[in-house]
Amino acid sequence: VRRGGRRSGHSGTREAVLTAAQRQFSELGFDRATMRSIAVEARVDQKLVAYFFGSKQALFVAATELPFDPAEAIHSVLSGDPARIGERLAHLILGMLDNPAAGVRLIGLVRAAAAEPEAARMVRDLFTREIWAPAAAQVPARQPELAVSLVATQVLGLVMARYVICTEPLASLDSETVAAAIAPTLQRLVTGVETEAETAASRRRSC
Amino acid sequence: VRRGGRRSGHSGTREAVLTAAQRQFSELGFDRATMRSIAVEARVDQKLVAYFFGSKQALFVAATELPFDPAEAIHSVLSGDPARIGERLAHLILGMLDNPAAGVRLIGLVRAAAAEPEAARMVRDLFTREIWAPAAAQVPARQPELAVSLVATQVLGLVMARYVICTEPLASLDSETVAAAIAPTLQRLVTGVETEAETAASRRRSC
Repeated sequence: VRRGGRRSGHSGTREAVLTAAQRQFSELGFDRATMRSIAVEARVDQKLVAYFFGSKQALFVAATELPFDPAEAIHSVLSGDPARIGERLAHLILGMLDNPAAGVRLIGLVRAAAAEPEAARMVRDLFTREIWAPAAAQVPARQPELAVSLVATQVLGLVMARYVICTEPLASLDSETVAAAIAPTLQRLVTGVETEAETAASRRRSC
Repeated sequence: VRRGGRRSGHSGTREAVLTAAQRQFSELGFDRATMRSIAVEARVDQKLVAYFFGSKQALFVAATELPFDPAEAIHSVLSGDPARIGERLAHLILGMLDNPAAGVRLIGLVRAAAAEPEAARMVRDLFTREIWAPAAAQVPARQPELAVSLVATQVLGLVMARYVICTEPLASLDSETVAAAIAPTLQRLVTGVETEAETAASRRRSC
């Protein structure tokens, strides 16, 4: 796949593309940045960008770092009064999503995953490695992996309803009100009342 | 915008495009159907398809009918034992999403909304008109609009986690187990324990 590009295959190519992508996605936003404009800035043939990353969505996921330290976030939620885990988690989530710089990255990751299967796989790998697996190792639920994946449904659904589809009244409410509304659900999930669900005996679907 | 297409502006054009889109999206799937192939089948200039519908995502939303009768669904969930509303709603949701024909439409609507702002607006209008507003008129929660939008986060998040991002173990679990895991959350939301959230006093964000 080496073609007429200015860079073509040496080890710095991928990094040059990622650096250009990070800058353009954060300055121009996802829609205005293009594979072409990123290739031009990275001094790489556009075909090589497509070869390395596939789609613009997949490039976005590869170029996006989580806007928080997962280990620190998990620690801050799980230490302190166990009866207020849901409340702390709800405030952490709303604080990040309502923060313009952090929110645009997290919401962008969810949108990229929805748009394109390869981006969905990359987001799954990123979230599993950085958030879901470390969280499952520490939450006090009896079925921690299931609990974490149910918490994920609440967070992903909040992103979709409040920030992407803009479901009312959820889209217009202030952070505090939304945090108070979802905290009891998160508390129940993290502290593990979902024991009816017998995971081991019931794996059937594949995805 | 009348150009060289074979049909161009008479009242049947839009309907011809929607009919072709419905057929191609259901037979080929979203990714393999194209604006061009739909225009060819509808005997309409491709530019006119773009003029009427904007993006392929928006055309998908316009061409997709809900795979269930909302009035009947709301009635079946809300009649009967009030203590089992969450359970009935959970089974209804999982039954639709795990049904291949219905699931592909509902998951497709969520993916289209995530991919493109105009499609997001159309999905919001469709869900608000057909599901969320009629449901809010009937659920027993003290803040029914808020309750319905919180239920929407659970459903949208389930779509993203189980069917799009394929978060484990949620993606591999059978329907019954997932329904049992989300039913208590839905029960709490629909029967209205979220009264801490004082809606009226706290509208600040705009979206």
